[in-house]
Amino acid sequence: MKAAIIGGGVIGGGWAARFLLNGWDVAVFDPDPEAQRKLDAVLSNARRALPALYDRALPDEGQLLWPESMEAAARGADWVQESVPERLEIKHAILGRLCDAAPSAVIASSTSGFKPSDLNAAGASAIVAHPFNPVYLLPLVELVGVPERTRAAAALLETVGMAPLTLAHEIDAHIADRFLEAVWREALWLIKDGIATTEQIDDAIRLGFGLRWAQMGLFETYRIAGGEAGMAHFLAQFGPALKWPWTKLMDVPELDDALVAQIAAQSDAQSGGRSIRALEQLRDDNLVGILRALKQADSGAGAGINAHEQALTRPRPPIMARQQVPHSWIDVNGHMNIAHFTEMVSHGIAGLQNAIGAGRDYIAAGHSFFTVESHMRYVSEVRAGAMLQARAYVVGVAARKVHVVFDLEHEAGSAAQAEMLLVHVDLSARRSVAMPDTLQAGLQALIAAQGEAPPPEGLTLSV
Amino acid sequence: MKAAIIGGGVIGGGWAARFLLNGWDVAVFDPDPEAQRKLDAVLSNARRALPALYDRALPDEGQLLWPESMEAAARGADWVQESVPERLEIKHAILGRLCDAAPSAVIASSTSGFKPSDLNAAGASAIVAHPFNPVYLLPLVELVGVPERTRAAAALLETVGMAPLTLAHEIDAHIADRFLEAVWREALWLIKDGIATTEQIDDAIRLGFGLRWAQMGLFETYRIAGGEAGMAHFLAQFGPALKWPWTKLMDVPELDDALVAQIAAQSDAQSGGRSIRALEQLRDDNLVGILRALKQADSGAGAGINAHEQALTRPRPPIMARQQVPHSWIDVNGHMNIAHFTEMVSHGIAGLQNAIGAGRDYIAAGHSFFTVESHMRYVSEVRAGAMLQARAYVVGVAARKVHVVFDLEHEAGSAAQAEMLLVHVDLSARRSVAMPDTLQAGLQALIAAQGEAPPPEGLTLSV
Repeated sequence: MKAAIIGGGVIGGGWAARFLLNGWDVAVFDPDPEAQRKLDAVLSNARRALPALYDRALPDEGQLLWPESMEAAARGADWVQESVPERLEIKHAILGRLCDAAPSAVIASSTSGFKPSDLNAAGASAIVAHPFNPVYLLPLVELVGVPERTRAAAALLETVGMAPLTLAHEIDAHIADRFLEAVWREALWLIKDGIATTEQIDDAIRLGFGLRWAQMGLFETYRIAGGEAGMAHFLAQFGPALKWPWTKLMDVPELDDALVAQIAAQSDAQSGGRSIRALEQLRDDNLVGILRALKQADSGAGAGINAHEQALTRPRPPIMARQQVPHSWIDVNGHMNIAHFTEMVSHGIAGLQNAIGAGRDYIAAGHSFFTVESHMRYVSEVRAGAMLQARAYVVGVAARKVHVVFDLEHEAGSAAQAEMLLVHVDLSARRSVAMPDTLQAGLQALIAAQGEAPPPEGLTLSV
Repeated sequence: MKAAIIGGGVIGGGWAARFLLNGWDVAVFDPDPEAQRKLDAVLSNARRALPALYDRALPDEGQLLWPESMEAAARGADWVQESVPERLEIKHAILGRLCDAAPSAVIASSTSGFKPSDLNAAGASAIVAHPFNPVYLLPLVELVGVPERTRAAAALLETVGMAPLTLAHEIDAHIADRFLEAVWREALWLIKDGIATTEQIDDAIRLGFGLRWAQMGLFETYRIAGGEAGMAHFLAQFGPALKWPWTKLMDVPELDDALVAQIAAQSDAQSGGRSIRALEQLRDDNLVGILRALKQADSGAGAGINAHEQALTRPRPPIMARQQVPHSWIDVNGHMNIAHFTEMVSHGIAGLQNAIGAGRDYIAAGHSFFTVESHMRYVSEVRAGAMLQARAYVVGVAARKVHVVFDLEHEAGSAAQAEMLLVHVDLSARRSVAMPDTLQAGLQALIAAQGEAPPPEGLTLSV
């Protein structure tokens, strides 16, 4: 697959990274002489963060191309994404040329404000695909446009792990940015009137309702607040408060030099002299941590990550698990904590179960494997960002037990050798039971595939 | 310490749980005959969630009391929290009586709308302490009032793990609820005009900017978007967009029966028939997961959890770690995953290092211990919510090595035996070096304290 990225700033660069890291070839066109340097910075952040969401490896990166013209970029593309400045006359000209150059592609604009009818007033046939920064990490894309185009666009975006939200009707600024604008206006008033600083406003959000919104949003949260009496009850309680003249939303504060200086000074004080690059990495590490927590709960944005992960290619036995080490796995000693060595082994066991026909469906039907003993030798330190894989060697099998060694391997060679003793269990009785013939056959197939490979040395357990 | 809770609904109950689980005695007064049942439900959720934030045990729960009168509840309290309905004449009467009954206590109101000057117009001397649901989990409390009172209040709230945000000037609805109101108004318009459903609005938040806001809030996020050019540059770019007539904030939609019915129906469809109780637990599990991720990064709300954890009493050797098992530690087999057995051992090693003088400061000064080998026997399954502890037995010590066994224990007895071989390292050279005498002495003291206790059986490693 090929994407063309027209305009390689923070948003365009984020799109490029999202496609590239999902294995698409990406052609970027941006006349800015600094474009390659800027895109490299975004890509470097993206390589650190996006693969760390998944407990599988992403596909090999696609090829990054810098053609000489917009038309050359668009030619042969499956997706063309325009992310140029928000000026309608520029967008009209560019979208028209792109539609001519790539008539069968999805032609999409990152515009945060314009409607498709605005964009297409000069004859183009583009849709809105409005993403959120950092585009390589946040799944949401607002899609607006002709249904057959947005349907095709949604299907493509899902293959790169995004969560398309298709609007039934076009409206200025779509949905999410209308909320952002509302909060932004009120925040400007609070600063202008000396009620709160930028830091207090950020804390008012991130220590309170921001945590709720990261996982359930607005209405589901209020539904809960209404209790068993339900949403109608909540509305009856909350409704009257709407009549109060709380907010200053009716008016827009003048963003004059004095207010700009006030905000910039407060923001400088707040971020404690950290560089934008450091703040970007902190933001991304936090987002990866939050998204991984939601993935564990299979809730909100995490449910989408799980769905995308299922679509990623599994490694082939004897490699039973393969993934990039997230920064959150690093401990005070500056290397991957022992808990995550075991976590990688646990993913290896899941891969082994899947390989022998004891995966999700088998577990759901009432049987699985429990670990009863492990012996781990830690060979070398593992760093954040390393690609780590678990290679299995089945040492022995009994009626209800499996003796298997996982070699954890990274670029530097062996990271650890984990000898594991697994027992096959009935999940209702919580007791060991003999494996069915199908699983025995699966294990024998793995052993046969091991062939003449030398068995791991220094074993201490046995079935 | 003692807290009096006047009004035991969702908010009052959340306050009660926050204080109780931090070891305070709590007296609740609420004339509702259902009050005890309702509080039990909140407490049950809180016991599941709050302790799971910490990698130490919270203090023993305080005593829950149900006195006959408001005055009896307030008498002798250090903190009195009023959470009755938002009607000013009721608040005047109650706050006056509470100030008389507990003249030396902090008298605080959970009001989301009223200013201290409103609350105290009839002679009370209360402050605003406005929390966020679920109060037992979200740290934010907006404090408004006379500085000497809010200072004392902030100090007390920090001891129960909350994050007080003190406003310099009073304003209707404080800070956060003004933002919530702005978003709510715009959301009602979007539903009324048929642009989006409740589910689409929730997704527009939780799959996009809600994830950003959970960790950095509004301004820090925009600072990053401005890039190296800084906040002033961002404002210059964003400013013009403020003039656009995007939002419908100027007006409040009529929340008539038709709109209420529309919202309630969409919300019913969205939550898929799950009970409020199930939604509460999902919300709480998600929040615990997100907060633990932020704790790992020591960022946002997670930094406050780490600070509070440092103030919690450490277990006494030979118990080196003790904490409640979070729901996020449970895997597809319905029990604690093996990665978290190792995580508990890792916490045990941290406790051991601390006990012998090789804790945070020692590590920061350049030395620590790495694990080189482990042998774990899994004895029994561990469930979510279990209190789990790691008991250390130092088996042997060499110049640069420690051989130690951790027994992981829960209520059901032994959960696992983990035999660990640790090596003392120079963190710059990343190589093993001999321990200083102080650490050897610390280890010998632990061995001496073990006395005649029988050594663990079935050992396979040695120094």
